[in-house]
Amino acid sequence: MGYTELDQKAINTIRLLAVDATAKANSGHPGAPMGMAPVSHVLFNKFMKFNPKNPDWANRDRFVLSNGHGCMLQYALLHLFGYGISMDDLKAFRQIDSITPGHPEAHDTPGIEVTTGPLGQGFANAVGLAIAQAHSGGVFNKPGYTLFDNYTYCFFGDGCAMEGVASEAASTAGHLKLGNLIAIYDDNHISIDGDTKCAFTEDVTKRFEAYGWHVVWVKDGDNDLEGIEAAIKEAQSVKDKPTMIRLTTTIGFGSKLQGTGGVHGNPLKADDIEGVKQRFGFDPAQSFVVPQEVYDLYHKHADEGAAQEQEWNQLLQKYASEFPNEHADLTRRLSGKLPEGWEKSLPVYKPSDPAIASRKLSEAVLEKIHSVIPELLSGSADLTGSNNTRWKNAVDFQPPEYGIGEWSGRYLRYGVREHAMAAIMNGLAAYGTVIPASGTFLNFVSYAAGAVRLSALSRVRAIHVATHDSIGLGEDGPTHQPIETLAHFRALPNCMVWRPADGNETSAAYYSALTAKHTPSILALTRQNLPQLEHSSIEAALKGAYPVLEAADAKVTIISTGSEVSICLDAAKYLQEKHGVVARVVSVPCFEVFDAQDKEYRLKVLPDGIPILSVEVCSTMGWERYSHEQFGLNRFGASGPYKEVYAKFEFTPEGISKRALATIDFYKGVPVRSPINRAFQQIL
Amino acid sequence: MGYTELDQKAINTIRLLAVDATAKANSGHPGAPMGMAPVSHVLFNKFMKFNPKNPDWANRDRFVLSNGHGCMLQYALLHLFGYGISMDDLKAFRQIDSITPGHPEAHDTPGIEVTTGPLGQGFANAVGLAIAQAHSGGVFNKPGYTLFDNYTYCFFGDGCAMEGVASEAASTAGHLKLGNLIAIYDDNHISIDGDTKCAFTEDVTKRFEAYGWHVVWVKDGDNDLEGIEAAIKEAQSVKDKPTMIRLTTTIGFGSKLQGTGGVHGNPLKADDIEGVKQRFGFDPAQSFVVPQEVYDLYHKHADEGAAQEQEWNQLLQKYASEFPNEHADLTRRLSGKLPEGWEKSLPVYKPSDPAIASRKLSEAVLEKIHSVIPELLSGSADLTGSNNTRWKNAVDFQPPEYGIGEWSGRYLRYGVREHAMAAIMNGLAAYGTVIPASGTFLNFVSYAAGAVRLSALSRVRAIHVATHDSIGLGEDGPTHQPIETLAHFRALPNCMVWRPADGNETSAAYYSALTAKHTPSILALTRQNLPQLEHSSIEAALKGAYPVLEAADAKVTIISTGSEVSICLDAAKYLQEKHGVVARVVSVPCFEVFDAQDKEYRLKVLPDGIPILSVEVCSTMGWERYSHEQFGLNRFGASGPYKEVYAKFEFTPEGISKRALATIDFYKGVPVRSPINRAFQQIL
Repeated sequence: MGYTELDQKAINTIRLLAVDATAKANSGHPGAPMGMAPVSHVLFNKFMKFNPKNPDWANRDRFVLSNGHGCMLQYALLHLFGYGISMDDLKAFRQIDSITPGHPEAHDTPGIEVTTGPLGQGFANAVGLAIAQAHSGGVFNKPGYTLFDNYTYCFFGDGCAMEGVASEAASTAGHLKLGNLIAIYDDNHISIDGDTKCAFTEDVTKRFEAYGWHVVWVKDGDNDLEGIEAAIKEAQSVKDKPTMIRLTTTIGFGSKLQGTGGVHGNPLKADDIEGVKQRFGFDPAQSFVVPQEVYDLYHKHADEGAAQEQEWNQLLQKYASEFPNEHADLTRRLSGKLPEGWEKSLPVYKPSDPAIASRKLSEAVLEKIHSVIPELLSGSADLTGSNNTRWKNAVDFQPPEYGIGEWSGRYLRYGVREHAMAAIMNGLAAYGTVIPASGTFLNFVSYAAGAVRLSALSRVRAIHVATHDSIGLGEDGPTHQPIETLAHFRALPNCMVWRPADGNETSAAYYSALTAKHTPSILALTRQNLPQLEHSSIEAALKGAYPVLEAADAKVTIISTGSEVSICLDAAKYLQEKHGVVARVVSVPCFEVFDAQDKEYRLKVLPDGIPILSVEVCSTMGWERYSHEQFGLNRFGASGPYKEVYAKFEFTPEGISKRALATIDFYKGVPVRSPINRAFQQIL
Repeated sequence: MGYTELDQKAINTIRLLAVDATAKANSGHPGAPMGMAPVSHVLFNKFMKFNPKNPDWANRDRFVLSNGHGCMLQYALLHLFGYGISMDDLKAFRQIDSITPGHPEAHDTPGIEVTTGPLGQGFANAVGLAIAQAHSGGVFNKPGYTLFDNYTYCFFGDGCAMEGVASEAASTAGHLKLGNLIAIYDDNHISIDGDTKCAFTEDVTKRFEAYGWHVVWVKDGDNDLEGIEAAIKEAQSVKDKPTMIRLTTTIGFGSKLQGTGGVHGNPLKADDIEGVKQRFGFDPAQSFVVPQEVYDLYHKHADEGAAQEQEWNQLLQKYASEFPNEHADLTRRLSGKLPEGWEKSLPVYKPSDPAIASRKLSEAVLEKIHSVIPELLSGSADLTGSNNTRWKNAVDFQPPEYGIGEWSGRYLRYGVREHAMAAIMNGLAAYGTVIPASGTFLNFVSYAAGAVRLSALSRVRAIHVATHDSIGLGEDGPTHQPIETLAHFRALPNCMVWRPADGNETSAAYYSALTAKHTPSILALTRQNLPQLEHSSIEAALKGAYPVLEAADAKVTIISTGSEVSICLDAAKYLQEKHGVVARVVSVPCFEVFDAQDKEYRLKVLPDGIPILSVEVCSTMGWERYSHEQFGLNRFGASGPYKEVYAKFEFTPEGISKRALATIDFYKGVPVRSPINRAFQQIL
C-alpha cells in the first residue's frame, strides 16, 4: 500500500525498456511487458524473496513467465534488481549468442528458472516447481526449521490458457491442493488473431474453480496497484488451494495501439515510441533509460533478499548440527551429485537368469535404488501397473488430508496427462532437490513431445520411462504401437534414447540417465520378456554399443536394439547352422552415447570390411548412420498376439537371416567402408 | 419410455459379447462395455439414425467411442445392427488381420467413423464431425431441404476427460455453440490406476459449463433407462450449446469386480464369467450368444434407418432438380474427387519472379484455389497472420449470432490449440464433405503429434501448413526452431512431409496434398524469402526429387530441401568459381513421394559414381537414405536475425562448399554406389 510516483516511474521504466529493446532488435513482443509491468512491480518488490547475487538460493521464490514471448519484461526486471544482466545485454536482445534470446532460456541467463515460450509449458513447469517445494518441505522441514516455504509465481496469458498442457497441469495442481502456487492470468483479451472473442469465450474463472483453484479477479490491472497487492496477499493466505489471479490488463498499455493485436508481436513504430515516452514523462530522445531512484528502489529490495538468504543460511547451519543426516542429504542433492557408491545397488544379471520384460527390469532397478537415491521422484500417467514405475513400499505424493499419501511421498499420480507430466517434470528438475522419473507407453511420449523437447533444450535431468515400446505390445494394435517415435527422439538434440536388450543394459540405462546431469533420457522398454544376453554388462552397455556376439571371420554385422537383439542372436545361429555363414551381432542400446565414444572404439564395434545390417521393429529412419542395409517397419503395425505380429512382419531368425544373406550378397566384391568413417565433422 | 425385459436382455447381450470376446482373445477391456451397454442400447435404438447397409450415408448420425479401448462395445453394436461385422469377426477380436482390432480403426471396419484409442482424440474428432455437419448444413441446406441435420454422439471416459487435447476441443466446441454435439461422459470413477480420487478430483460438470456446454447428470447410468432417454432428449433440444451428459455408471457392471480397476483392462476370470451369465439369465455353458429377439429388435431399428436414408435420397433427388449446382458440388465432394481442372488454378512461377517466402507462396495458392475447391476449410491455431492461411475474402466459420462469421464460413479460428486442431481436422476429414487445412509453426506441429499420427493411421486427407520451418525463423530462437521435426514426421508412415524450395514446388506440394485422398500432408514453409529456381516446375517437383542443376561432369551431388536449395545452388557456383569443381544440385521437396518413384528415375536423380552430400538446417537423421555425407544441425539453433543464424552454423555457399570438397576428397578412388541401390525391399 501507499504507492507513490516512484512506483509509477519504476513501472514505466520497465515498459520503456521493453519498448526500446524490441525497437532496437526490430523484433519481439512489447505488448505483454507493457501490460504486465504493474503486477511485476508489485509482485517482485512487495512479495518476492530472492537474492540476485545468488540466483541458486534453494528457498528463493520461483517466477515463471509462461507467456515467454514477453521476456523483455523478465530481462528488464532481472537487470533492475541486479542479476547478471547488464544494460548491454538488454541492448543485445534477440541477437546471436546474447543471454537475452527471443524467449527465456534457463541454462544461460541468471535468474531464469525454466525455458519458456512454447505456450502452456511454463504454467506446467510452475506446477512442477510448486510440487517440488511441497515435497522438499515435507522431506526436510522440521519443527522450528522451515527450510522450504517458497512460493511459485507464474504469469500466463490467453495463449497458455487455451493450451491443453496448461489445462492438464491446472487440474493436477487443483487436485494436489498446491497452496504455494500463485498463477497470474494476463486477461488482456488479445492473442495473435486479435480479440479472443473469435476463439476463446469460455469462463476461465469458473474453469479454474472447477479444477479446485481459488480465484481472485483484479479488474484494473493497469492501475490498481493496491488491488493487485491485496489479491496476492489473499492468494498467499489460501493454503489449501492454488490461486489464480485473473488480472484484466491492457496489452501494450501506453501505446497508440494499446488493447489491440497490433502491439502483441511487433515493435512500436518510432512516433508511437515518442508518444509513449512523453506520456510517461521520459525523454523521447533517449533510449534504455533507468532513473537512478528506480535502481535504488529495486536494489533495496534485492538487499532485503540477500539478508533473507543470509538468515536462511544461518538457519541451515543450525539445522546441520541438529539434523546432520538430513543436512548432508540436502547439500548433496543441491550439488546435483548422487550418493557415493549408489551404483552398487544396480542389479546385475547372468545369462542363466530368467527372461524378464525390460519394464520389469526397470522396476527391479527402482526397487533397488529408491532407498539409496532419495531424490528420485517416480510416477506415471495412470499406467502404474503397466509401466512398473512404482516400488513396492512407495508412498504417494498427495495432500495428507486425502489419507492416501504425504507431501514427502515419492510417487506421483499424474493422471492421464502425458504432456503435463513431462512439463511438470521439467519444473521438478529445475527446483534442484529432486530427480523426476515417470512413465507412460512409448507411443504416448509423443503426446508430450512439446515438453520433452524443452527437457532437452533446457538441459534437465528427467527420466521418461516409456514402456510397451513396439509392435511387441501385441493386441492393443497400431494405435498404440510406436513406429516413428524412436527416430523422433533420436533426432532431438541432447536427448538420450535408451532401448535396452536385457537386465544389464537396463541397469546401464539407469546409470546413464541418472548421471547425466544436463540431459533427459527416454528409456524404451518392452512389455514382453527378454532373455539375459551372454555378453552383456553394464560397462559394455555404457559405451552405447558393443558386440554381443563376436566372430573374427564374420561375413556380416547385424546391429540391433532392445527386444530384437536376442532374435538377431538366434538369426546368427540360424545363419551358421543353415547356411554356414558367420555373423557378428552388435547391440546399440543408445545412439547418443555411442556417438560420443572415440572413433577407434566405434570402428571396433562397426568395423570396415563387412557389411552391416540393422534390425529394429520401427522406422528405419536414422539407422543408415550405422548400417549399410536396414530391416525395419516403415508401416503401421497390427493387432494380435505379439509373437504373431513379429512373425507377420518377418522379425524372426529366418526373416533376419534372409536379409543378412541378401546384404552379404549385395556387397560381395565391393570394398565395404564402415559408416563410422565420415568426410567431415558435424557442428555440435 | 416403456422399457421391457427385452431391452434388458439386449443390454446384457452386449455386455456378454464383450465378456466373451475379451475372454477368447485373452486380452482387452470388458469394463467399459459392461458399464456403457445401457446408454448404448438407448442411444442407438431410440435416437440414432443410420443405415447399416450403407455406412456412408452422408446424413447419418455419427458415433465416436473416444474411450476406444472399450471397442468390443462398438463391435457388438455394429454386429447386432447388421453392419458388415460377423460373429466370426467378433470371435477374431484382437487377432492378426481381423476387422476387430484392439482399438477401432476407421479404414477397415464398416461403421467405425474414426480411429480411436489414444485418449482424448475421439472427443476432438467428434468436435470436428460436428463442425463439419454445421458447415455442411450452412452450405447445402435450403428452405425445405434440410440435407444435413445429423447429430454427433461421443462416449468418453475419465481418461479422455483428463487429456489436454479433449480440454482444448471442448473449449472450442463451447465457443462454437455446437448444438449438434452430444458427448456422454462415462463417469465411473475408475482409471487404470484405480479410483480417480488419486489424480482427478476436479468438478467436470462445472468445467464443461465453464466451456459453455449444457450439462445433464444421470445418476444411475446402470439402470435408469428412462433417465438416459430423457437426458438425450434434453440434449437434442438444446440447439445453441453442445451437451455433456454426465452418466454415472459402474465399470464392469455384473462382474464380481464391478466398480474396480480390476475389470478395466483384463478379461474376466472363468468363474466370474459364469457368475455374470447366470446373473443375466444366460447359459454359462454358452458363449457368443445373441437371442433372436435381440437381433430382431436391432434389425428393426436398422430397417427404420434404411427407410430414413431412402427418404433422404428422395429429398436429395428433388434437391438435384431445384439446385443442380449445389447437388453436383455435393455429389462430387462425397466422391472425394476434386473439381475437373482445378489444378489449372495453381500458380506457376518463372525464375525472374521475385523472391517470396514459401508461407506467402502458400497463401498465393490458397488465394487462387479457394474458389475452385469449395470444400477446402482453412484455419490456424491463432497464427493467421504468420501462417498466411487465410485468403483475403474468407468468411470465418462462427455461430452467426457472434456477428463475426457464418456456419458456411471456411476459415476456422482454432485458438492456441494445436493438438485439438489436428484432431478436429481428422474429424472434419472423416465427415466427407470438407478437406481441412490449417496452420501453426512447424515446431508446434509437435504439440499435435498424437493427432497427426492418427491422421496417418486413419488415412485422412488433412493438410498441415507448418510455417517458420527452421532456424530461418530467426529471432524467436531455439524454443521455436524445429530441429527434429522433419525427421519425426518423415519417419511416420503414410504422412507426406513437403518442404518446397520455391513457388512451383509450393504449388506441387498443394497438388500432391489435395490429391492424396488417403494421406495427410505437412507443408513445411519458410518465414524468409526464397528465390524462384531456374529449373523447377510443378511436374518435376511432383516426382518428389529432381535436379535443379544438372552437369554431366559433376564431381558431387548436393541434395537439399526448401530454403537451403538456393544456397546449395550458390554453393555450386562458388565451387565452380573458386575451386573449378563441378557440382550438381538436387531438390527433394518430399521424401515419401520420391520413394514411390521407380528405381530408374531415382537412380537418374541420384546416380552411381559420384558422392552425394545432403544439406538441410535440421537433424541429419534420415538423410543417409539419400546421401553419403550429411550437413545438418544436430544441435539446437540460436536467437538472432536469420542470416546471422545461418552464418553462425555455416549454412552459406562457403560452408557448404567446404563440406562438398571434403566429401569429394573422402570418396576419391573409392567406387561410389548410389544409396538408391538396396540389398532388399522394405516391408510396406
